[in-house]
Amino acid sequence: MCDNTSTANLTRLVVDQESMSAVFSFRIDAECHDSWARAGTIQTPHGTIPTPIFMPVGTQATVKSVSPEELREAGAKIILGNTYHLMLRPGSKLIEEFGGLHSFMHWDGPILTDSGGFQVFSLGHLRKLSEEGAAFKSHLDGSAHMLTPENVMQIEAELGADIILPLDIYAAYPCSPGDAREAMERTHRWAERALVAKARHRPEQTLFGIVQGAFEGDLRAESAAFIGSLPFPGLSIGGLSVGEPKARMWEMLRYVTPALPRSKPRHLLGVGSPEDLVIGVGLGMDMFDCVLPTRVARHGGLFTRSGRVSIRNTRFRTEHGPIEESCDCYTCRNYSAAYVHHLLRAEEQLFYRLASIHNIRFMLRLAADLRASILAGSYPAFRDDFLARYRPASEQVRDEQREKWRAAKLR
Amino acid sequence: MCDNTSTANLTRLVVDQESMSAVFSFRIDAECHDSWARAGTIQTPHGTIPTPIFMPVGTQATVKSVSPEELREAGAKIILGNTYHLMLRPGSKLIEEFGGLHSFMHWDGPILTDSGGFQVFSLGHLRKLSEEGAAFKSHLDGSAHMLTPENVMQIEAELGADIILPLDIYAAYPCSPGDAREAMERTHRWAERALVAKARHRPEQTLFGIVQGAFEGDLRAESAAFIGSLPFPGLSIGGLSVGEPKARMWEMLRYVTPALPRSKPRHLLGVGSPEDLVIGVGLGMDMFDCVLPTRVARHGGLFTRSGRVSIRNTRFRTEHGPIEESCDCYTCRNYSAAYVHHLLRAEEQLFYRLASIHNIRFMLRLAADLRASILAGSYPAFRDDFLARYRPASEQVRDEQREKWRAAKLR
Repeated sequence: MCDNTSTANLTRLVVDQESMSAVFSFRIDAECHDSWARAGTIQTPHGTIPTPIFMPVGTQATVKSVSPEELREAGAKIILGNTYHLMLRPGSKLIEEFGGLHSFMHWDGPILTDSGGFQVFSLGHLRKLSEEGAAFKSHLDGSAHMLTPENVMQIEAELGADIILPLDIYAAYPCSPGDAREAMERTHRWAERALVAKARHRPEQTLFGIVQGAFEGDLRAESAAFIGSLPFPGLSIGGLSVGEPKARMWEMLRYVTPALPRSKPRHLLGVGSPEDLVIGVGLGMDMFDCVLPTRVARHGGLFTRSGRVSIRNTRFRTEHGPIEESCDCYTCRNYSAAYVHHLLRAEEQLFYRLASIHNIRFMLRLAADLRASILAGSYPAFRDDFLARYRPASEQVRDEQREKWRAAKLR
Repeated sequence: MCDNTSTANLTRLVVDQESMSAVFSFRIDAECHDSWARAGTIQTPHGTIPTPIFMPVGTQATVKSVSPEELREAGAKIILGNTYHLMLRPGSKLIEEFGGLHSFMHWDGPILTDSGGFQVFSLGHLRKLSEEGAAFKSHLDGSAHMLTPENVMQIEAELGADIILPLDIYAAYPCSPGDAREAMERTHRWAERALVAKARHRPEQTLFGIVQGAFEGDLRAESAAFIGSLPFPGLSIGGLSVGEPKARMWEMLRYVTPALPRSKPRHLLGVGSPEDLVIGVGLGMDMFDCVLPTRVARHGGLFTRSGRVSIRNTRFRTEHGPIEESCDCYTCRNYSAAYVHHLLRAEEQLFYRLASIHNIRFMLRLAADLRASILAGSYPAFRDDFLARYRPASEQVRDEQREKWRAAKLR
């Protein structure tokens, strides 16, 4: 898989990585004795991130309907940007001219950008996948583009996030073991190319590796061992939460986590819901990102400690209390559930903001509570207590929502 | 027009009004020698309002896309609520149960509610107009409702605004002198009924009178003299900005203002644009309200000292500076025009907020500048300088926008 040149490059990169500890580091503050949960601290050029952490998604250089100050107040420590969307509009070179994503969007905390690969496969009109990369047409105007492991490093350098991801390929669910292996092996080859290409760009950026392997336990373990052995300071687990039952996702992590180096932060890509956060932490995950909390908020789904409620429900019409009595978010501190219900019914824009702030704050408080429980040595009790009280959306509701969103996307 | 009972009531009301000076007062701080402009101070139970003032409109218990804290930061001193919308959804009794509009919507400053009449005539499916009142069907669900001078006082008492307006009738533009007189005279009879009915409700609320008379100078003068003679602590000028050329509107104010008592604040209902504020102040107006600044903002029209610009324009794509260099609003302090342009192109919700905040701040800074110029004795120079620099939307653009909004409303 590696020729001599890239092996030499990789050796040099290991050295580079060590000298880079000034710009990125991960420290483990505490570990759970009865699970793989751990609490840690990540240092980046734009700030410190306590883990476990939830990362709100700002696809188009904005977390939908929420301002940077509100994100900060809700406890956000790091947010995501989507390379696919940003490279197409407004363009990564334009963002670079504006000093990068941080100054363009007025967020001075850490940012992580993905590689754009996931969106190319799910949103773009894919034209051709080859060893070189992925050629596609923009979902906006049909213009032709190509992503390669190398140019993704350049695009992400232009965007200027603290943590960046390499181009990878995920296998659809379900897929054959052969397809799963093929996607994984190409992801591995692209990971090496990305590492080499990355060295030509901004040293202040940190490249994570991505583990693939679809839903084959042996491939997951193999991918984790391989990617974990490369000089990536952190690791993202990709290709999960792509339509499979949740039990399958958790099963895969049982193969992945033991095969990963203990010393690197682990990011579960595109996950998830409150219950996913609680369970994922116990399976060794440190970082989570998902549009779900803000997307379900915009549809009226609000998180409470007893489960997700629909604020559209008539029972909230006359509710004097906040969405959740004990919640410390801006929305719950200042508005009755009845007012939030009214705003949704009246289709007022302030609704989307108040609902999103509530769910983001819920996720970040949950992450902080998980961290505190790990530090206190009581994560298993916290997890069991949370899961006993929290009524998640059923698989059926999840499937219906997924179909609705997919249909909306295709319009 | 008045029977003996109501005359007796009105006499009592005059006394009541005087004893009400604790809850509402208007003081003239300075007057212009070369125009009818004046600077004043209004006291209400929820705070002090320096005049001239622009009042952002919060139709459905929210100024679209802007939070109360943001309104406050933009300099808002008083906002409007629309009785028609609020009585239908969520209902005035529900708002009363929540302690009134202030606490329901988390705005602790002064509020003014209109009577709902204007919306009944323009939005509702009007069924029957009689001496008793206006019967209509809700634009939301077709349910039957009736507004009378008396029940409007009760509905507005339930909403709990600081300043409330009585039910009135405006004549369409254009209309015959006969129709204009009929609408004016009914408005006058309803004004007296409203004064009597008002006395049964909250003493902390202040009822303004409404001047009508369509586009007949003599009727305008007659209406101003009549309404001005009743014990209303303030006066709103209604029935203008309903489709006529602007010159006709200003012509009418030349009949109205001299016929009004000097000592009461004057509110130009549903007006207007930046240039309207500047001109209207010179014609003796103290208070202005309009959805225009927030509505045009949501369509990309942003105010600058040299005129309205469209942020959608490609020239903003790479603009590093703010929308306006000298602007002190949250948007201009923190974001490039290019970012705002990007948000609009990407149809991101944050756009509507940033654009609305900019225009609201523009209107409130303009009102403060007008006040300062009156206090400094330099209003005419300020007016002439502003109008020489500011390029307003042409009558043609105004007509097109009006048609577009009307069409959108009917959908």
